Amino acid sequence: MKIDRYPENPLITPGDVPPSRDDFQVLGAFNAGVTRYNGETLMLMRVAEQPVCDDPAICRVPLLETEGDTSQMVIREFRRDDPDINFSDPRVVSFPDHLLLTSISHLRLARSRDGRNFTVDPVPALEPDRPSEAFGLEDPRITQIDDTYYIVYKAVSDNGICQALATTKDFVNYDKHGVILCPENMDSMLFPARIGGNYAILHRPVGSMIGGPMMYVGYGTDPMHFGEHHFLLGKSSGGWDSGRVGGGAVPFLTDRGWLELYHAATPDDHYCLGAMLLDAEEPHRMLAKTPAPIMKPEASYEVQGFKANVVFTCGAIVEGERVSVYYGAADEVMAGADLCLSEILEALEPA
Amino acid sequence: MKIDRYPENPLITPGDVPPSRDDFQVLGAFNAGVTRYNGETLMLMRVAEQPVCDDPAICRVPLLETEGDTSQMVIREFRRDDPDINFSDPRVVSFPDHLLLTSISHLRLARSRDGRNFTVDPVPALEPDRPSEAFGLEDPRITQIDDTYYIVYKAVSDNGICQALATTKDFVNYDKHGVILCPENMDSMLFPARIGGNYAILHRPVGSMIGGPMMYVGYGTDPMHFGEHHFLLGKSSGGWDSGRVGGGAVPFLTDRGWLELYHAATPDDHYCLGAMLLDAEEPHRMLAKTPAPIMKPEASYEVQGFKANVVFTCGAIVEGERVSVYYGAADEVMAGADLCLSEILEALEPA
Repeated sequence: MKIDRYPENPLITPGDVPPSRDDFQVLGAFNAGVTRYNGETLMLMRVAEQPVCDDPAICRVPLLETEGDTSQMVIREFRRDDPDINFSDPRVVSFPDHLLLTSISHLRLARSRDGRNFTVDPVPALEPDRPSEAFGLEDPRITQIDDTYYIVYKAVSDNGICQALATTKDFVNYDKHGVILCPENMDSMLFPARIGGNYAILHRPVGSMIGGPMMYVGYGTDPMHFGEHHFLLGKSSGGWDSGRVGGGAVPFLTDRGWLELYHAATPDDHYCLGAMLLDAEEPHRMLAKTPAPIMKPEASYEVQGFKANVVFTCGAIVEGERVSVYYGAADEVMAGADLCLSEILEALEPA
Repeated sequence: MKIDRYPENPLITPGDVPPSRDDFQVLGAFNAGVTRYNGETLMLMRVAEQPVCDDPAICRVPLLETEGDTSQMVIREFRRDDPDINFSDPRVVSFPDHLLLTSISHLRLARSRDGRNFTVDPVPALEPDRPSEAFGLEDPRITQIDDTYYIVYKAVSDNGICQALATTKDFVNYDKHGVILCPENMDSMLFPARIGGNYAILHRPVGSMIGGPMMYVGYGTDPMHFGEHHFLLGKSSGGWDSGRVGGGAVPFLTDRGWLELYHAATPDDHYCLGAMLLDAEEPHRMLAKTPAPIMKPEASYEVQGFKANVVFTCGAIVEGERVSVYYGAADEVMAGADLCLSEILEALEPA
């Protein structure tokens, strides 16, 4: 598989993103939903921020607190020598019976005329503003249907990891529609067309007792309520996809069916991209998939960073044979690469 | 709290239920959804069955296998001395990376004129017949809206624990509508009225990374597709409800709001019943709950059995002051008890 990583990579680094508050620093700008709008390529990035803290003995944790209809960001402080708290994972503060995140994410736009050189908006597009978003907004996918852009994103709080929906027609004004898939769910996106008159959603629930992380497809008569959920793919018992699998880019229609570029990881979190082909009329039926990754972490910005060895896409732009994959690298930066559609299709094997 | 357990308890035992196949034995008849229909009290029981096996060195596991549009029950055999398999929990056969259940459940009706003396139907009402039900159907709740009875039940397979919907108008003919809530979800039920024109569902997703088992309320414009999910209650950090919580009987409307009799358990699976009051117009808002259980395992058939110390309700019949709670006891039998509505309401404390 030929992977043309862009010479401009990384396209966006944390230093390119002004923090949302003076007392915050940007840790990562990654896992962006991608679309074309008004002649531009838009990346709606997950921007992870952390309170600035000069005291290495202290961990400062950002958190949205809601009281009635008003909410405000609060900073909680914990001593790193507290024997009841585990700080070994830099992403979380683990207490005996719950956890907090060390950063909070919002969604921020970057815009480009050429798909390579991006300008970052000075302020967030979508920010946490309700209890279900107390720990932040993450990993959006953007799906255009008619003149509406449907943004499905992770809403994270101590009440679980949900999938929530926002819509926009202009990337200036946004409407939030609340939680559309309850915990635990990640990596969800609408298909970019009604299928048999219905909306379809690719999502990634987690079976706690049975099943582990699994890709599912559900259907809805409107884009806010879903049912008719069907299992699509679970993790394998060995190899590159034995830790987890989940949706990646928004699926796009080819003459053979929906092509989905998804992610898979080993149990030690080595994240790669694979491809699968879904039935055009019944996308919960997987027709074929790539037995091996089509893209692995190899570039320096993929194998090093906040979380090493991660390539993770939330969106691609397809024009003819060229599949421009935008992806988060090492949970820290955005990058892009061109793949060839016919090469991806040739790599598929019947499911 | 006065609990009038019925002198006829247990109302149904495994010996009262003819197995669905000659080579199966009934392990339990419990966790029945309950409703009134045509002058009778109906219990739609979970009937757990196991292949008869005379060889103590062998464990025989029932499983529905599907090939295209046809499915058939198969029996798989495992040697109990296999070092790669863990048989310590009598309910499951644990392999290193997945598990099977030692029994498979279907749903079976029992009918009564007086609510105390029941006759068991000779054959199942609803049986596993598709991949999402490969491990069985469990824990139904029955909700009447107009002339339709909505049965929400656990559909269990190696693709996770889902909530599925079936409907009937006569308890003879049933229509299955597939999976309405994806993994992992249990203890779900429709509210018995449209609320603001919409359907509402009480359900119990599980946050694997964050949250654990949590009660949620979602809404739908039809009874098969849900969104607008709101957190309702999670487990506490200590006490009778520190292991898990989940919906119990179908909520019923009082002049103070929806009254929900729910279950909670300790980390070592001591299951009790509690009560909560939900806002009449916005049932995702909890107004009050009982700080202590309203019913604990105490009778012999509750503290002994397939799984000791379990009282677990899926339905109650309310007539004036009398709340007739039907409940599974010790994951083995059905029992009933009358509670007093005003006593339950008096036990509530503001949330």
